[in-house]
Amino acid sequence: MNSLTISVVKKKIPTKQHCLKVASLLQATEGVIYMRGGLEGNRDDTDIELQFRQESNFFYLTGVNQPGFHFVFDLKTHTATLVAPVVPPQIILWKGPPDSLPTLIKKYDVDAAILASDLHALLYALSPSAIHILDNANVSAIEPFAGLLTTAELRPALYESRLIKTPWEIAHIRRVTHVSSHAHIALMRTVQFGMCEYELQALFEYECARNGALRQGYLPIVASGRNAATLHYTKNDAVLARTDPDMLLLIDAGAEQDCYGTDITRTFPVRGEFSRKARVIYEIVLKMQKVLCWFMPFCDTFRFMRHWLMSLSCPHRHHHQRLQSVLALLRPGVLWKNLQQLTTDILCHELIALGILVGDEEKLIDLHVVRAFYPHGLGHSVGLDVHDVGGKGAGIFSTSSEFADSSQRHLFLLERPLEAGMVLTIEPGCYFNDAVLRTWLAQPELSIYFDLEQIEKFRDVGGVRIEDTVLITEEGYENFTIAPKEVNDIEALMAGARDKWVGFW
Amino acid sequence: MNSLTISVVKKKIPTKQHCLKVASLLQATEGVIYMRGGLEGNRDDTDIELQFRQESNFFYLTGVNQPGFHFVFDLKTHTATLVAPVVPPQIILWKGPPDSLPTLIKKYDVDAAILASDLHALLYALSPSAIHILDNANVSAIEPFAGLLTTAELRPALYESRLIKTPWEIAHIRRVTHVSSHAHIALMRTVQFGMCEYELQALFEYECARNGALRQGYLPIVASGRNAATLHYTKNDAVLARTDPDMLLLIDAGAEQDCYGTDITRTFPVRGEFSRKARVIYEIVLKMQKVLCWFMPFCDTFRFMRHWLMSLSCPHRHHHQRLQSVLALLRPGVLWKNLQQLTTDILCHELIALGILVGDEEKLIDLHVVRAFYPHGLGHSVGLDVHDVGGKGAGIFSTSSEFADSSQRHLFLLERPLEAGMVLTIEPGCYFNDAVLRTWLAQPELSIYFDLEQIEKFRDVGGVRIEDTVLITEEGYENFTIAPKEVNDIEALMAGARDKWVGFW
Repeated sequence: MNSLTISVVKKKIPTKQHCLKVASLLQATEGVIYMRGGLEGNRDDTDIELQFRQESNFFYLTGVNQPGFHFVFDLKTHTATLVAPVVPPQIILWKGPPDSLPTLIKKYDVDAAILASDLHALLYALSPSAIHILDNANVSAIEPFAGLLTTAELRPALYESRLIKTPWEIAHIRRVTHVSSHAHIALMRTVQFGMCEYELQALFEYECARNGALRQGYLPIVASGRNAATLHYTKNDAVLARTDPDMLLLIDAGAEQDCYGTDITRTFPVRGEFSRKARVIYEIVLKMQKVLCWFMPFCDTFRFMRHWLMSLSCPHRHHHQRLQSVLALLRPGVLWKNLQQLTTDILCHELIALGILVGDEEKLIDLHVVRAFYPHGLGHSVGLDVHDVGGKGAGIFSTSSEFADSSQRHLFLLERPLEAGMVLTIEPGCYFNDAVLRTWLAQPELSIYFDLEQIEKFRDVGGVRIEDTVLITEEGYENFTIAPKEVNDIEALMAGARDKWVGFW
Repeated sequence: MNSLTISVVKKKIPTKQHCLKVASLLQATEGVIYMRGGLEGNRDDTDIELQFRQESNFFYLTGVNQPGFHFVFDLKTHTATLVAPVVPPQIILWKGPPDSLPTLIKKYDVDAAILASDLHALLYALSPSAIHILDNANVSAIEPFAGLLTTAELRPALYESRLIKTPWEIAHIRRVTHVSSHAHIALMRTVQFGMCEYELQALFEYECARNGALRQGYLPIVASGRNAATLHYTKNDAVLARTDPDMLLLIDAGAEQDCYGTDITRTFPVRGEFSRKARVIYEIVLKMQKVLCWFMPFCDTFRFMRHWLMSLSCPHRHHHQRLQSVLALLRPGVLWKNLQQLTTDILCHELIALGILVGDEEKLIDLHVVRAFYPHGLGHSVGLDVHDVGGKGAGIFSTSSEFADSSQRHLFLLERPLEAGMVLTIEPGCYFNDAVLRTWLAQPELSIYFDLEQIEKFRDVGGVRIEDTVLITEEGYENFTIAPKEVNDIEALMAGARDKWVGFW
């Protein structure tokens, strides 16, 4: 029951630094930034309070994870003012006294704190030339200043700023990734036939929460057997039945602490040993992930090396070891789309080798048929949101038009060279998803490339995904994810041979 | 790690019975009921899916805890039709295939299932004289029928129906109360100085979740020491510091399964033994709760017996035993406001005995000064919502005007005699809350009744609340809450003397 001895990040979040970064990206030397934080919410038409979680952009600029706050940042004087809600006495009885204004200044990285009743007076005093806001949805509190509002620039500046993490953010995501890795390890140690997927979810959340990571960054996926073929399976209500002794379990879960989260997937056999078939698919995905790490620095020229790469057959333990030894080569400048293509090519090559795909490799690659087994992206930025913002374009001002289209806001594709300070997932996968396969097989001109009999043999594997959260550094990268992923390490851990495994860290 | 051997309620929820009950309360023999269930939601401006929880009224009529459904109940033929969302192929890849229409009919207690694309055709075919809806917020899908909509009667009928629980509901709430009781017991066994409140919250949620109660009915309150004086303290971020060796811990938490929840509070000493002062306050609250149970049948005439009752000094173990032996007298017909008054009177009497309140007992009761220490209601209905609906008035149609005022919707006061089938909490408390006391002491004409020196002696106790969820039965009541609350039982449990305690069940 003892908590992990993982170093705690105690220093308060340096949000002033975030404000200055955003201000510099805004290239504005006058006007103010105004934001309204999240409000308390109740469930439907009831008095049942929902767990509060601050809106990410507001947290980025203030570090406040309490409802009802506003924030004003003066771009001329660089003064950060926190605007606290006026709390009525009856709420104090139920929820306790709010922080005093001096306490707020001590607790958060701001220059001043005022009550919401003084917000208008503050804005009149500042008399800004413009008020930069995220959108028009949350501005009812500053109605008298409606004429000054501008939405064009704040969001792209914030997104750009959030893409490259500060040292505090890095330390925080590292810690929550360590905590979540330990929770994954706890599941490997605990799982047994007869359990229900939700029991494992409960244990995962408990292991994170007792170490201070009280929320999950996203709904955990605990998918046994064929359920793992569904990419965002979150029902988690199936029993791990012994009728499938080779059953794999895919756990995609990562906790959140102080609004910063992580994203980790591990896939492992319920009985502690990979079956032959499961191991074949698992080793392919592991190769996709590790070759990737190794190949990143050379991605721009990877076509030259592809043939040599393809000659690495899988599974070949000594190749993996060789690849692992050069993991440290990963570094800035690499283009994500090349990495994505590389993993696709590797999977295509391996599925041909397995007889699942049939035909000329170059042709199959051009037809993208491998997407039938790997229908998602290689990874994404991680931070305040699990699919974090930014990275869509190479430069901030060239992309601001995209932000006018709100449907584009959720896009988290990395379309620019990697940079130090980015935190990313690397999450290749291979799935046997009936719905996806049906779509491909329904097209006669494409179905000829699939060997149904061979596919049927691997159906029970369900799906494999291996996902790490890594930091891009000046020299290369740091893998925050410390849960084992090598076949031998997982099997040793699950066999209880902890001593064999801890050397891996 | 084994799950509890608590009987599982597997039978599907008999929602048809609920529909017929509501229909009979509506007193309508034609027209239809139309409801739209909850939709999926994302957190703020992100793609992060929020955990789905069906709107309670929709769950009551359908048993469906999936997003995107509609429901139509024909009041003429009593046909229940579930209307399923049309799921696009790309969603199936990510979330798995939806239930087929025949599966829906098998899975839920409905007569028919159609796709949302056929909703208009169904309504045209039924050609209803009126469409009963809850409110106008969720009717965009049936715009062509806007002229038929009526909001006047459905909500009161639903609330009345939900107040008196059906056997399935009773079995379900009993089970989730048992599971939650075990989680409370787990905390009593586990707590130690040095832990953080959130670790206990995490353990509570885990103990519930691994037994299938995956959600909490409300945000758990884990309040140590003086934090317990804040009624809805949910920060749960304090460390249980050994500097307060007499520290009490107040846990107000209850899980939810299949949308039905419970509500339990236990207060116990971190070190496993009540200090003298903590025990004094604790025994008063226990007396408030137990005398209450004993007194309920006589409440209408309780004034006659008050003087005798008051003569029971506290703590007196043999009195408690005597009271406990007559718990079974609790039964229908009792008026809640009398019970509330009774607990208030007991507390007043005891606080005078302790020297905390000073003055004539009758006068202090008339001035309600005891509300300075007990500023909340005695309890409420529990069901699909933790503060469940219904019970506001004695008859459904006499109260329908109240429902026109949406601000009244959250009221859960019981203003009518108890009836068999009601599920209620009984939760007296006593708190030393600075903000509340300040309000009372600021009034010179009232402050004279408070002995500040005496209050100061008990300040560290923080707050005590003891809360059970009980069912009113024809013969009396059944207490679903099986976590111990007697001082000796709690101390024996915490000392590890499980054998001494299990006989209590």
